[in-house]
Amino acid sequence: MKAHTYYHTFNTKKKREYLNITQMVSGELAKSQIKEGFIMVSAMHITASVYINDAESGLIEDIDEWLGRLAPEGIDYRHHRTGEVNGDAHLKNLLMHHQVLVPVTEGRLDLGPWQQIYYAEFDGRRPKKMIIKIIGK
Amino acid sequence: MKAHTYYHTFNTKKKREYLNITQMVSGELAKSQIKEGFIMVSAMHITASVYINDAESGLIEDIDEWLGRLAPEGIDYRHHRTGEVNGDAHLKNLLMHHQVLVPVTEGRLDLGPWQQIYYAEFDGRRPKKMIIKIIGK
Amino acid sequence: MKAHTYYHTFNTKKKREYLNITQMVSGELAKSQIKEGFIMVSAMHITASVYINDAESGLIEDIDEWLGRLAPEGIDYRHHRTGEVNGDAHLKNLLMHHQVLVPVTEGRLDLGPWQQIYYAEFDGRRPKKMIIKIIGK
Repeated sequence: MKAHTYYHTFNTKKKREYLNITQMVSGELAKSQIKEGFIMVSAMHITASVYINDAESGLIEDIDEWLGRLAPEGIDYRHHRTGEVNGDAHLKNLLMHHQVLVPVTEGRLDLGPWQQIYYAEFDGRRPKKMIIKIIGK
Repeated sequence: MKAHTYYHTFNTKKKREYLNITQMVSGELAKSQIKEGFIMVSAMHITASVYINDAESGLIEDIDEWLGRLAPEGIDYRHHRTGEVNGDAHLKNLLMHHQVLVPVTEGRLDLGPWQQIYYAEFDGRRPKKMIIKIIGK
Repeated sequence: MKAHTYYHTFNTKKKREYLNITQMVSGELAKSQIKEGFIMVSAMHITASVYINDAESGLIEDIDEWLGRLAPEGIDYRHHRTGEVNGDAHLKNLLMHHQVLVPVTEGRLDLGPWQQIYYAEFDGRRPKKMIIKIIGK
C-alpha cells in the first residue's frame, strides 16, 4: 500500500470564493504514482468545504445565494459571543460537507463527465489549509 | 491490497426516484473477495445522490417533500441560462451528498440494522452512472 | 494493509446531544498502530450523525437551533404512520451526514487546529452504535 499527502494553503481575496481544484488533485495523483485507490480531499478548517459539482458560473452563483438563504449571515449567532463573526460560515461548512472521496482507477481520477472538485471558502482573506491524501497501490 | 470497480447505469422512468441498492453493493463485495476495507458508492453525475437511511416508504416521501422545500423546483436559477432546467437537482445533490463509504468487516457490509444504501435520482429519464469501488484485503 | 475496527454504543440522557469523540478516535488509532491511512467514523443508526467542527458551546447551540429550523420536530411526517415519532431525526441525519473520513499521517489524526470530531445524537435515550474503522499501513 502506498500513501501520498499534500497540503495546500488558500488565501482568498474575497470572503466567499469557489475554486476549481480538479487540476491540483490530478497533479497530486500523478506524483503519487498510485493506480488504484481513493483520494481524500478535505478542508482542514471548519468554515470551508470541498464538494463535487458543475464548473458553471451561473450554478456557482445559485449555490452561493442558496447557502445564504439556508445558512444566513447577519444573524446574532451564539458563536459570536466568542468575538467571532463567522457563525454562518460554520453552518455552510456543515451543509456542504468539508470533504469528498475520489476513486482512482488505472491511474486517473474516476469522475463522471461533469464532476469537478471545488474548494468553497466561506470565511477567507486569511490562510486556510486543505489536505489531499491518496492511498492505494 | 485488492481493488474492485463496478459501474452501474440507471435510467429511471420518473424524474425523481429513490432506489435501494444495498443488494447490488453486497453483490459486488462478494465478487471482490475483499474481507476488510472500504466500499465507496458514488453518483458520477451532479444531479443525483447516494445516501444511507431507512427503507420505509413514508420516510422516502418525507425526504422528497423536504428536498422540495429546501431546494425547490420552479425557481428561475441562473444555471437555467445555459438551457438546463435542473438547478434544483444540483442543489439536492449538494444537500444529500453524492457519496457514502461503507465499512467491510469479515467480508460483509458492516451496516447497522436499519441502514440501507439508496441511489436518489433528481433528474432522471436518461442514463446516469454510479460507481462502486472497493479497496481492502 | 492493516485494518482495525471498533464499535461504541452511546446511550444519551437527552434526546439530542453533541459529544466530542476526538479522544476516542485517537485512542483507537493508537491501538491500531497504523501510521498512514484513513479512519472512518460512522453512525450505524439513521437518526444520528458524525461531523467535524468546532468544540465551542455557543456554536453547538447554534447548530441545534439551525437543525430545528431546517428539519423541524412537531411535523406530521408520513414516517410517523409506522408508530415512530422521529421523522425530524432522520432528516437531521441526512442534513449533517452520518460519517466522516479522517486522514492518518505519521500515526496521528491529520486534522486542522480547530477540527474536532463529534457524534450528534438526534433520537437518544436508547442504545445507538457507532463504528470506527481504520485501514492503512
